[in-house]
Amino acid sequence: MLAHMKTDDHSGVMDHLTRDDCLRLLASVPVGRIVYTRRAMPAVELVNFITDHGDIVIRTDPSGKLAAATCGAVVAFEADALDLDQRRGWSVTIVGYSREVTDPEDLARLREIGPRPWVVGEHEHFIRITPGIVNGRRLG
Amino acid sequence: MLAHMKTDDHSGVMDHLTRDDCLRLLASVPVGRIVYTRRAMPAVELVNFITDHGDIVIRTDPSGKLAAATCGAVVAFEADALDLDQRRGWSVTIVGYSREVTDPEDLARLREIGPRPWVVGEHEHFIRITPGIVNGRRLG
Repeated sequence: MLAHMKTDDHSGVMDHLTRDDCLRLLASVPVGRIVYTRRAMPAVELVNFITDHGDIVIRTDPSGKLAAATCGAVVAFEADALDLDQRRGWSVTIVGYSREVTDPEDLARLREIGPRPWVVGEHEHFIRITPGIVNGRRLG
Repeated sequence: MLAHMKTDDHSGVMDHLTRDDCLRLLASVPVGRIVYTRRAMPAVELVNFITDHGDIVIRTDPSGKLAAATCGAVVAFEADALDLDQRRGWSVTIVGYSREVTDPEDLARLREIGPRPWVVGEHEHFIRITPGIVNGRRLG
């Protein structure tokens, strides 16, 4: 059973999740949304990812907008799992520092275990996000 | 059949969607993610929403962080539908100006037709986001 703090005793409760629960739930899904700033405007992109040593790792086109905007930046990341019919689910958001993976050994390892791109193209750029602030809630 | 521009002829294609297709897909799902800036940091929150006269309308706690951060601001909004097993789906993102709904008639109407909150609590604050930049892609 999840450790949580109930914010309401009625139906339609929202439970705030512990950091450990958030990171465990995050690791249970393959897809999330990276949130960053591009040209001084909020931006969001759907990505697949893995968790590695507590970090979120995404894989992207080295010449793309995402790679340019998220190296050495503070970004947010959101993942969720929802049952729309039952109006239940969870959502976890983290805020953390993102950086390009440059260590050759780490890169070689991530090419083996890293997220497999959904689309064709060059995806040889790996971005590692270390969770700082972690928030999550369970709905329904 | 959707109008689109194929970016690749291989399997694992990514199709860029037209603005009309993006807005139609957006209107087909009840939940999305609002992306904004809070304390100079990127922030993201899962919300349910409706589309109304081409705008996205969300409903929130008037005293909450989301209400404070998204009135009169440029925000992003993302929604998607994914088949994780088949690695197919779509994702749409918009960037637009958000503002509080204050017109009494509009408020009364939105209370009737507006998104029904998933959680108990006061949600008498309506935020309307007018899509400016619209981008979408179909994956798989």
